[in-house]
Amino acid sequence: MPTILGQNQYGKAENRVVKITRDGATHHIKDLNVSVALSGDMDDVHYNGSNANVLPTDTTKNTVFAFAKEHGIESAEQFGVHLARHFVTSQDPIHRARIRIEEYAWERIETSGEAKHSFVRKGQETRLTQVTYDGESWEVVSGLKDLTVMNSTDSEFWGYVKDRYTTLKEAYDRILATSVSSRWRFNWTDDAREMPDWDASYARVRQHMLRAFAETYSLSLQQTLYQMGSRVIEECAEVDEIRFSLPNSHHFLVDLEAFGLKNENEVYFASDRPYGLIEATVLRDGCEPRIPVDLTNL
Amino acid sequence: MPTILGQNQYGKAENRVVKITRDGATHHIKDLNVSVALSGDMDDVHYNGSNANVLPTDTTKNTVFAFAKEHGIESAEQFGVHLARHFVTSQDPIHRARIRIEEYAWERIETSGEAKHSFVRKGQETRLTQVTYDGESWEVVSGLKDLTVMNSTDSEFWGYVKDRYTTLKEAYDRILATSVSSRWRFNWTDDAREMPDWDASYARVRQHMLRAFAETYSLSLQQTLYQMGSRVIEECAEVDEIRFSLPNSHHFLVDLEAFGLKNENEVYFASDRPYGLIEATVLRDGCEPRIPVDLTNL
Amino acid sequence: MPTILGQNQYGKAENRVVKITRDGATHHIKDLNVSVALSGDMDDVHYNGSNANVLPTDTTKNTVFAFAKEHGIESAEQFGVHLARHFVTSQDPIHRARIRIEEYAWERIETSGEAKHSFVRKGQETRLTQVTYDGESWEVVSGLKDLTVMNSTDSEFWGYVKDRYTTLKEAYDRILATSVSSRWRFNWTDDAREMPDWDASYARVRQHMLRAFAETYSLSLQQTLYQMGSRVIEECAEVDEIRFSLPNSHHFLVDLEAFGLKNENEVYFASDRPYGLIEATVLRDGCEPRIPVDLTNL
Amino acid sequence: MPTILGQNQYGKAENRVVKITRDGATHHIKDLNVSVALSGDMDDVHYNGSNANVLPTDTTKNTVFAFAKEHGIESAEQFGVHLARHFVTSQDPIHRARIRIEEYAWERIETSGEAKHSFVRKGQETRLTQVTYDGESWEVVSGLKDLTVMNSTDSEFWGYVKDRYTTLKEAYDRILATSVSSRWRFNWTDDAREMPDWDASYARVRQHMLRAFAETYSLSLQQTLYQMGSRVIEECAEVDEIRFSLPNSHHFLVDLEAFGLKNENEVYFASDRPYGLIEATVLRDGCEPRIPVDLTNL
Repeated sequence: MPTILGQNQYGKAENRVVKITRDGATHHIKDLNVSVALSGDMDDVHYNGSNANVLPTDTTKNTVFAFAKEHGIESAEQFGVHLARHFVTSQDPIHRARIRIEEYAWERIETSGEAKHSFVRKGQETRLTQVTYDGESWEVVSGLKDLTVMNSTDSEFWGYVKDRYTTLKEAYDRILATSVSSRWRFNWTDDAREMPDWDASYARVRQHMLRAFAETYSLSLQQTLYQMGSRVIEECAEVDEIRFSLPNSHHFLVDLEAFGLKNENEVYFASDRPYGLIEATVLRDGCEPRIPVDLTNL
Repeated sequence: MPTILGQNQYGKAENRVVKITRDGATHHIKDLNVSVALSGDMDDVHYNGSNANVLPTDTTKNTVFAFAKEHGIESAEQFGVHLARHFVTSQDPIHRARIRIEEYAWERIETSGEAKHSFVRKGQETRLTQVTYDGESWEVVSGLKDLTVMNSTDSEFWGYVKDRYTTLKEAYDRILATSVSSRWRFNWTDDAREMPDWDASYARVRQHMLRAFAETYSLSLQQTLYQMGSRVIEECAEVDEIRFSLPNSHHFLVDLEAFGLKNENEVYFASDRPYGLIEATVLRDGCEPRIPVDLTNL
Repeated sequence: MPTILGQNQYGKAENRVVKITRDGATHHIKDLNVSVALSGDMDDVHYNGSNANVLPTDTTKNTVFAFAKEHGIESAEQFGVHLARHFVTSQDPIHRARIRIEEYAWERIETSGEAKHSFVRKGQETRLTQVTYDGESWEVVSGLKDLTVMNSTDSEFWGYVKDRYTTLKEAYDRILATSVSSRWRFNWTDDAREMPDWDASYARVRQHMLRAFAETYSLSLQQTLYQMGSRVIEECAEVDEIRFSLPNSHHFLVDLEAFGLKNENEVYFASDRPYGLIEATVLRDGCEPRIPVDLTNL
Repeated sequence: MPTILGQNQYGKAENRVVKITRDGATHHIKDLNVSVALSGDMDDVHYNGSNANVLPTDTTKNTVFAFAKEHGIESAEQFGVHLARHFVTSQDPIHRARIRIEEYAWERIETSGEAKHSFVRKGQETRLTQVTYDGESWEVVSGLKDLTVMNSTDSEFWGYVKDRYTTLKEAYDRILATSVSSRWRFNWTDDAREMPDWDASYARVRQHMLRAFAETYSLSLQQTLYQMGSRVIEECAEVDEIRFSLPNSHHFLVDLEAFGLKNENEVYFASDRPYGLIEATVLRDGCEPRIPVDLTNL
C-alpha cells in the first residue's frame, strides 16, 4: 500500500449551548460554543469504513448538552476538563480529546424594577479556551480574539532598513491600533495540583494586556507586543507562555493640503487591506514553547 | 427609445474616517463609516457617458475627510447635515444628497498612569444615521443594529392558529432573544427649528428600548416589539416613527430525558437558521410612515 | 393612545431546503433558502399579545418543507407562487404573503463511471426571487447578487466636474470591475395569463447582462449600467423594470516609478474600501417603477 | 529577565494584486492575495524597539507589486518562490520567508464580438499556496478551500459505538456533503531539481480529489476522506502528503409524516451548526508529515 494514514481527529464542532442558572428570581447565564475533537484507534474507519471504534459526532454533541446539566458550567475551562476527561476515560479507542470553547459575555440590562433575568450581549472580545487531555496530563490554552484597541499618540516608527523598494516615510507621532488575538498556556497540567481560578485568571490577563498596551511608548508594534506578553507572564504566575497575532490596523493621516487645510494629527483614513501582521511568542524563561506558531481559530 | 432611466444615485460608499480631538493630554475619538449618495440631473451620463454633470465619487470621498477637519465631528447626525447641505447647495446638478453613517463606539482603557489617549472598542451595537436633504427640508433617520438581548424567562407563546402543518408545542416559559435592528425618524425637518441634541437623544432611545424589552412580560415577540416602539415614542418627543426588524433567535430547550436527566429550563441549544423574523413600525398617532418597510443596511 | 401600529410582517426566514429528484440513477438537485413574510389582521398580537390570528412561524417553516414534497420545486419562482397562494387563500387573517428565495447552483462532477448523483456547487452568483401575492395580483421580482465582472480595458473616465475638493486625475484606459447586484420585475401579474418560463428567462437576462457589460466601451460606470439594463429590457419581453447596485471595485494602477519600473497598465492594486456605488433603475417606456430604490437582501 | 522572546514573524498581509497581460487584443488575468511573513534577527525590535534590522512591512508590500512587473505571475507558486528568495537573499537579518497566496479564478465572458478583455469571476474554490524558504531548502504547500460537494446517495452510517448519550439512528441512504479544505505538500525542496508544473499539478490534484469523492461508496466520511487523499498521492508523483478538514454538512431528512406525506429521500433540511468535523493526513508511505494538524487560513 503506497499511502498511509497520518494524524487524524473528529468530533462535533460548534455546539451552541446556553445555560441558565436560577438563583431565585436572579438568573445567571453562560453562553458557549463548544467543539469536540477526538483521536485514537481510528485506522479502520479510514481504511475500510468500519465504524466499530467510532463514537458518533452526534453523541459528542449530546454529551455537551447533557454535561451542561450534570456538571453545570463553572467556567469554560472547567467545562472543557469535564468533557475531555469523559471521552478519554469512557471510551477505550479514544486516546486524546481536545475541547475548544468560545465564550460570549453578557451583562445585565438595568431596569427600574426587580427584573434580574434580562441581558444584553457585551459584544467586545470573544473569550477562548482549548483543553487537551491524553489520559495522563492536561494542556490548557486560553485566549481571546477581536479585542480592538488604539493609542492615538505615543507611537513612532523610524530607523528601519531601507532597500530599493522602500518608500515609507518615517513617523514620529502616529496612531497605533490593532485587534488583539492572543493565546496563553497555563502551567497546570496535573490532576494532583489545584486548578487555577480560571475566571479570575482571565480577568487578570486581560487587564494587564490592556494596560501594557496603553502604557507603552511604542517605537514599533513588536515592542508593544513584547511588553504586553512579558507583563502577563510577570503578573500571572499560572501562565508560562503567551502568543499574539497583531494586525497593524493602519490609520493613515489624510493629506489635506490640496484643500488648503493643515492636518495636525487629527483626521485619519482607517484602511482595511493590506495590513502589517506582527506575531510573536513570549515565554517564561526556561519554559518550552507549545502554542502553535499559526494561531488557529477556535 | 423603448427604455428610460428611472431613479438613480451615486457616490462614494464606506469612507472610514477617524477623528482625534486633543484636549491637552486628553484625547477624544470619533470613528465613522460614511457613505454618500447623490441624485440630480444625471440623464446624460447614463444615456451617453457624458460626465459634465458628474462630481466624481473620489471628490465626495475627499470632501468627507476635509469636512472632518473643517467642521469637526460633533455627532454623526450633525456631520451628515454638513455634508448633505454642501453637495446640494454647491453643485447645481445635485438636487438631493443622502449621507449614511455607521458609528463605532470606543471607551477608555483604565491605566495606572495619566494616559488619556488609549481606547478599546466597545463592540456592542453599531450606531447608524441617514441624513437626506433636497435643498428644502431634512429627513434624519437614526438607528442601531446588532444589539443582542435576551430574557431568560417571562416569555410565553400559545393560543395561536393551528393548521394542517402545525406541529409546534405551546410554551409557557421560554427564552426570548433577539438581535435588535431599529431605525427611528426625527420630526426635525426644518433649518428654522433647533436641532435635537443628537447624542442625548440616542442614549435616551437606546435606554428606553432596552428597558421596555426587559420589563415586558411577553406573550409574543410582536407584543414586545410594540412595547419597545411605543415606549420610545412616548419618552422621546423628537421621534415620530420607529421600525424594528427582530429575528426571533430561537433557544430550544434540549430534551435530556433519554439520558435520565430532567431539563428544568436550564440547558438550551442556540439555533442559527431558520429564525422567526418579526418586523413592524410604531408611529406617533397622526404621523405618516416614511421609514422603508425593508430596512436597508447603512 | 399616543402611538399606533404601522406596517408589519412576520414569518420564518432562511429555511434551507434541498430537494433531490431521482430519475432512475440520475439525480437532480434544487438548493433553496426560503424566507416567508406574512401580513394581515395582526393588530391584536402587537397591542395585547393575543396570538389568535397568528399562524406560527414554525408552521410556515413546516409548510416550506411539505410543499417541496407536495409540489416539487420546478423553479424558485414557481415554488414561491405555490407558497404565497397557500398562505393567503388558506388563512383568513393573512392578506399578503411575500416569499423570498435564494437559489444556489450546482453542476455535476465528471467521473469515469456512471455516477449521476455527485455534484459540486457552482459558487458563482446567487439567484434570487421575491414573489408577493395579495389575493388578487402577483408581483415577481427576480435577481442575482455577487456576480463579479471585469473589463481590463475599454473604460475611460474624464470630463467630470472639478470643485475645490477634486484631486482625481482623468483616466483614458482603466480597469472597470464590479460585483453585480440586480433585481428585475416581471410583467406577469395575473393568474389568467400564462407564467413565463422562469428558468429560461433567468438564463436570458443573465446572458444579456454579461454581454452588455463586455461589449460596452465605457465612459462611466453609469453608462455601462444603463446599457446592461436597456439590453435586458429590449431582449426580454417578460421584464418591464430592472435595477442595479454596482460598486465600482477600484483597481488602482500601482506607481512603480520609484523602483525604476514602468507600469503600462499591467499591475493593479485591488482596493476594498471606499468604493464608488452606482445605482439606477431602467424601465420599459411607459411602465411605472416598483422596485425599491434601496435593494434589500433576500 | 524572567521572560524571553520565542518564535516571531512579521510582514504585510493581504496584498491584493491583479496582473493583466496583453497578448495583442487578448488579455490574461492573474488575481492574487499575497501575504508576507519574515523571520530572523529580530530580538532588538521586540526588546527595545530598535528597527535597525526591520525591513518595513510597507516595503514588503511594494516588493509584491514591483515583482508582479519584474517577474510576472506565471503561477502563484512560482511568484511565491521569487518573493521568498528575494527577502532571504537580499537582507542579512532575514533568515526565513513565508509567502502565502490566495488565487481567485476568472473565466472569459462569451460575447458576439471580438472582445477578449472581459471576465467573470469563477467563484468556486479559492486556490492556495504557501512557499517557505530558509536560504537552503524550499517547502511548498498548496491547497484549496470552499469547494462544496455533495453525493445525494451511496452514503451510509451504521455499526458505530453506542454509549449512554447515543441517540442517533443508523442511516443506510443519506446525503454526504462537505466543503473541502485541503493542503498538499510537494516533494520539490531543492533548487537543483526542476520545479513541478504548478498549474498542471493543481488541475490534476483537484480532478482526482473530486472524482474520488464521487466514486467512493461511503460508509463514513473518514473513509471518503482517505480515498480522496490516497487517490491524490497515487496519481500525483509530485505530492507526498495531503491533509483535509471536512465538515460533515448535515442534510437532515425532514419528517413529513405528521402531514400525511412520505419523504422517500427527497426533502432535506440543510443545517448550519453544529457539524461533524473530520480531519486527517494521508501520506506517501515512508514520508514524514509536515503539514500542521490544524490547517490555518492563508
